Amino acid sequence: LTTLEVRAPSGVCRVLVGESLDHLDRHTPPGRVIVITDATVDRLHGSSFPAGEKIVLAPGEASKSLATVEEIYGRLFEMGADRSTFVAAVGGGVVCDVAGFAASTYLRGLPFGFAATTLLAQVDAGIGGKNGVDFRGYKNMVGVFQQPRFVLCDPDVLRTLPPREIANGLAEMVKTAAVGSPALFDELESRPGQALALEPDLIRRAVHESLRVKAAVVGSDEREAGPRRVLNFGHTLGHALEAAAGLAHGEAVAAGMAFAASFSVRKGFLAARERDRIAGLLDRLGLPAAAAAPAVALVDAVRKDKKRGGEAVHFVFLETIGRPLVREIPLAELETAIHDLR
Amino acid sequence: LTTLEVRAPSGVCRVLVGESLDHLDRHTPPGRVIVITDATVDRLHGSSFPAGEKIVLAPGEASKSLATVEEIYGRLFEMGADRSTFVAAVGGGVVCDVAGFAASTYLRGLPFGFAATTLLAQVDAGIGGKNGVDFRGYKNMVGVFQQPRFVLCDPDVLRTLPPREIANGLAEMVKTAAVGSPALFDELESRPGQALALEPDLIRRAVHESLRVKAAVVGSDEREAGPRRVLNFGHTLGHALEAAAGLAHGEAVAAGMAFAASFSVRKGFLAARERDRIAGLLDRLGLPAAAAAPAVALVDAVRKDKKRGGEAVHFVFLETIGRPLVREIPLAELETAIHDLR
Repeated sequence: LTTLEVRAPSGVCRVLVGESLDHLDRHTPPGRVIVITDATVDRLHGSSFPAGEKIVLAPGEASKSLATVEEIYGRLFEMGADRSTFVAAVGGGVVCDVAGFAASTYLRGLPFGFAATTLLAQVDAGIGGKNGVDFRGYKNMVGVFQQPRFVLCDPDVLRTLPPREIANGLAEMVKTAAVGSPALFDELESRPGQALALEPDLIRRAVHESLRVKAAVVGSDEREAGPRRVLNFGHTLGHALEAAAGLAHGEAVAAGMAFAASFSVRKGFLAARERDRIAGLLDRLGLPAAAAAPAVALVDAVRKDKKRGGEAVHFVFLETIGRPLVREIPLAELETAIHDLR
Repeated sequence: LTTLEVRAPSGVCRVLVGESLDHLDRHTPPGRVIVITDATVDRLHGSSFPAGEKIVLAPGEASKSLATVEEIYGRLFEMGADRSTFVAAVGGGVVCDVAGFAASTYLRGLPFGFAATTLLAQVDAGIGGKNGVDFRGYKNMVGVFQQPRFVLCDPDVLRTLPPREIANGLAEMVKTAAVGSPALFDELESRPGQALALEPDLIRRAVHESLRVKAAVVGSDEREAGPRRVLNFGHTLGHALEAAAGLAHGEAVAAGMAFAASFSVRKGFLAARERDRIAGLLDRLGLPAAAAAPAVALVDAVRKDKKRGGEAVHFVFLETIGRPLVREIPLAELETAIHDLR
């Protein structure tokens, strides 16, 4: 067990790397705890939950909605939850995002923590204090910034993940490496098979390194006014692909990173050889390195993306692996690049 | 125009006392502004709004709901609002509460400010960074703490208020006086008729003094972990009366204050003479000093009230006018007092 801290205006989050899900109750405060999870996680890991009350959501991306938030409010209301009740969300990104938002707003904020059960949630979704839901088919349109008290990351629970979910998490790990850790990039590049097989030592080190980079970035800029934007590498087109092509988050981000790398080469920021390393690693991890959606649908989806400010967009380029470059570019330039580079 | 500042963890709010609604656009940042209001305020004061886009809600307490929040999200989505869009809520407590919550959560937070058009919103609801909506008939069950950038208080717009709305606002003014300003209490006591008639000099001074007290309390304890609880004087039973008897907020708080004063006397904290001063002032302001609801319904509503923590409740007593005393008492003791004192 190693511990990292995210120190941000909305609170301090302790990230517990390598802690067992069986020990979740060591990290919740004394008093009443309500677990929020989904039916799949409950079936696989329910025996590790703290004894007591439980709200079980339907599994899947469709639960990341205002309707689910209202369902959680209703259950908390019926249970008579009060401001001393602790909410422990146990699950992947959807469970953490929706439960974190419901907890942050019920009675103007209940204390809450996460046990992240997917690789994606452990390296990305659970960390950072962003929570919320989708709206009208667009990602994360509604939410708040609020740090959980802790995020517990148990490597053992990852063993039950299907291969596609593992690749999903590895995509965000590649992203973090690309913008903040050349050493992690090198390691993934040299051992992609072990990464896909979740070789314990590799995964433990890689999760820790991903979290170290992310915790530092989030701590310096929780509300994404500047430095945190680098974590959106691959996400401008990624979110659009999720919306327009129905890809899983990691797959969409992978295709988005390949696009961002090509765009970086076209702008003269990045060497073609570095772009090829990124595309090659994604390919060896079984991730798509190209966007399979009509350019016009992508452009429309990008226009609605929440990171957009007016008619310009903060786009994350790379200068080299490990060194991102955020530039505000006209939306029209991005649109042209989408048409040309896909 | 005088300015007060509320400095709290979620941000700094400038309170503009005596500023004209016509000057709202002097306080919004450059760039796009969307006004959120209700149909009544739009009819009475729409000509004073900044030119541009507008979301007009149905007037009344029923709009303080998750359905209205979702309606606002939908309109912001259709308008293509982004993080640089400023939301200016113009209206009473309901408009400010619901628009503040929608703005605080859309895209994880748009910048927003208020122009408070009722006496209640000017002295209480608009100030303090609490926003949110009712849920299943209970007050403020869902929301966040987030300071608006400013609250503009124009005395001239109060002239269009119906008498019941004026009494509503005066009730919160009496509350603030009772817990933090004996001088304001004396002034209201000596000139209740002028207060009801909104005599300009009196109202300007009284609004300013109410806001001064509230800004200091909120600045010291935004999330109501301690000192801010004094502002709930009269509200434990008040919220229950709103839910169970359908009283207006100010009327319910008035009856709640009379109850809290009697309870304080019964506990030996407050002299009977002081309680009589409070009941007498409420009466001269046309406010109810007794609760017109079955005790059993009140007890049930109190049990659901969000300020409750476990089986105890933080109840705000008075030692004298201007000196509150917060004590955690068993819910059972409060229930007995409700049965005995009504």
